[in-house]
Amino acid sequence: MEFKIKSTLDRMRTGVVKTDHGKFRTPVFVPVATLASVRGLDNRDLKEIGAEVLLANTYHLHLRPGDELVKKLGGIHKFMGFNGPIITDSGGFQAFSLGFGMEHGVGKIANNIFLEGLKEVEYRGEKWAAVTDSGVKFKNHITGEIVELTPRKSMEIQSNLGSDIIFAFDECTSPLSDKEYTAIALERTHRWVEECLKYYDRGQALFGVVQGGEYKDLRIKSARFMAEKDFAGYGIGGSLGKSKKDMHNILEWVIPLLPEDKPRHLLGIGAVEDLFNSVERGVDMFDCVAPTRWARRGHLYVSPEEGGNPKNKFRIHIQNSRFREDENPIDKSCECFVCSTYSRAYLRHLFVANELSYFRLASYHNVYFILRLMDKIRESIEEGRFFELKKEWLGYI
Amino acid sequence: MEFKIKSTLDRMRTGVVKTDHGKFRTPVFVPVATLASVRGLDNRDLKEIGAEVLLANTYHLHLRPGDELVKKLGGIHKFMGFNGPIITDSGGFQAFSLGFGMEHGVGKIANNIFLEGLKEVEYRGEKWAAVTDSGVKFKNHITGEIVELTPRKSMEIQSNLGSDIIFAFDECTSPLSDKEYTAIALERTHRWVEECLKYYDRGQALFGVVQGGEYKDLRIKSARFMAEKDFAGYGIGGSLGKSKKDMHNILEWVIPLLPEDKPRHLLGIGAVEDLFNSVERGVDMFDCVAPTRWARRGHLYVSPEEGGNPKNKFRIHIQNSRFREDENPIDKSCECFVCSTYSRAYLRHLFVANELSYFRLASYHNVYFILRLMDKIRESIEEGRFFELKKEWLGYI
Repeated sequence: MEFKIKSTLDRMRTGVVKTDHGKFRTPVFVPVATLASVRGLDNRDLKEIGAEVLLANTYHLHLRPGDELVKKLGGIHKFMGFNGPIITDSGGFQAFSLGFGMEHGVGKIANNIFLEGLKEVEYRGEKWAAVTDSGVKFKNHITGEIVELTPRKSMEIQSNLGSDIIFAFDECTSPLSDKEYTAIALERTHRWVEECLKYYDRGQALFGVVQGGEYKDLRIKSARFMAEKDFAGYGIGGSLGKSKKDMHNILEWVIPLLPEDKPRHLLGIGAVEDLFNSVERGVDMFDCVAPTRWARRGHLYVSPEEGGNPKNKFRIHIQNSRFREDENPIDKSCECFVCSTYSRAYLRHLFVANELSYFRLASYHNVYFILRLMDKIRESIEEGRFFELKKEWLGYI
Repeated sequence: MEFKIKSTLDRMRTGVVKTDHGKFRTPVFVPVATLASVRGLDNRDLKEIGAEVLLANTYHLHLRPGDELVKKLGGIHKFMGFNGPIITDSGGFQAFSLGFGMEHGVGKIANNIFLEGLKEVEYRGEKWAAVTDSGVKFKNHITGEIVELTPRKSMEIQSNLGSDIIFAFDECTSPLSDKEYTAIALERTHRWVEECLKYYDRGQALFGVVQGGEYKDLRIKSARFMAEKDFAGYGIGGSLGKSKKDMHNILEWVIPLLPEDKPRHLLGIGAVEDLFNSVERGVDMFDCVAPTRWARRGHLYVSPEEGGNPKNKFRIHIQNSRFREDENPIDKSCECFVCSTYSRAYLRHLFVANELSYFRLASYHNVYFILRLMDKIRESIEEGRFFELKKEWLGYI
């Protein structure tokens, strides 16, 4: 993997990541294909939308259809028919989302501002994952059997999947974790990193993940530790604190300590406002299920021209009765095929009737919308007018 | 509406139906867009698949989003963004499917051979529709409120929808109805026909529907009655008896009595074997939810080259573990984009994981498959080799 920086503006930069399966431009939003499929979309859609890179989930693919089967069938690119770069996560996030996160009903941010109420799974008051010093034990959410992920196992699974970019296995802590626990988890993650470096597939590009929760000294310690290792890039993971301000602080502590010439991936974040504020602080890569998940729930992205703003999170809820007779597209300034073909009234009808086609059309628009926003953000950096664009969208600089 | 016969072979014919929204070739299979959407597909798919005409359901659209809203939004073509010919049914079928059919858990054929186990709704042991002399009273399956459809009301709703071809309101009887009841229902349907002829929108092409269940004298009576009226075409509806033989008999009694120069539509039938045997007996038009509904349940069509035959109903069930590592497309002879992109192993994975994308890809293939079969059937009639094609597919003539 190769990362070339094309232009910079303050702490921001645009660049290109090259892999064996082609390249993608940064800053980039990476759509999530949890089970080797971006929910509701197919590869032709993704090509048309301009998705240059996807992220699939190691834990989920290990369970279904199994990484060994994917390997046997020629690897994840061939399996899912996507020839561009593919990233896999480490499975560590599920240790949180199926464990502490499920037990306490929280997302990566305690007040759920950043994940905006999205939880990886619904709260059931029980843990489906438990961390030990050697790895994470999961209760398979399909069969109920115990599955263990270790750093080495995560590297093996990701090697079987054959993705281009892989992540080191880490413990993703909760916003509810106290400093003492977060420090213990961080030590564990740092020990695991050594295992990952030992066992990872040299044909893949390994990213380390900076942890440390909302605690400045832990984040700094972790960033320094990771920066010294020979990683192809760096994830920023785990709890991002209790507010947007906490997330901004974390990025401001961590990013200056990471190598300039390596891409930085803010894991699991994707709200419009956060994209601006994180790119501004030097983030190059994002992934998030938000565009497709919100789409399925009826929330469709709209630009400032259509009244989108940080307060309404740049979304309309299509079920609203004011759209019943609305012959306009979701967003008049959007050039996606959904907006050029269908009215809000029709999409509202499909949503209310729970029609299958709705999920696809809505997902298509939302992913298209976010990728076009990233195009605009990249251009604005290259043309030195990022802050104008930010002002136009967020109303503040 | 205009119907031109292009070529004939025994009782078979090929032709073209011209409407204000373009034309379609016959014999034709009409995909069903119950709620103004072919489940899982969008208009670009339909265009690519070559769907020349669609059928939407009057009863369902009356409830959601409401025919008056559709009218206000410019009619069904504009509403759903489909510019080709659109047919609407009369709502009479739901008098059966939500009434007697639901109460007794049966489809249009008592033993469900023709609908192959497909029921419009699941059996709940209760009636949701009751027939009176003036029309049909439905319990709205969404709100529980009583909705009444009468012949005049059906004409008004279909006029609001603005479809190109409409059906006269009829009582669709059950294969479990005895002759006495079927005769009473037939008289009622014939009285309703007069109402429909009085009130229908002259901008639409009205088809009458021949009823009479499995009873020869009733079918003949109904065919003669309908043939005398000035209809643009003829549906053959209601119970088609207790076996495939019964259905063939009904077609052989009815079709010779209908005007040669008008298209004949066999309502709700669409299995591969039935398409051959009905075209052979002079049917020009079919509609059925089978391709999309079976797709959603994991049943994918395959041609004789892939082992498709009347016994397996030209279908594989993708969940079967023998497809777990199968790198082949669903059907090697199929040129649809699903078959040219994805393996059975991948589709099986999506199906097992209940992934949204599966439903679309499976529906796409199944509709594509049936429309290509209809292309072949049309060509074979024009080239005088229908029976060769039939032998090749069904194994018998």
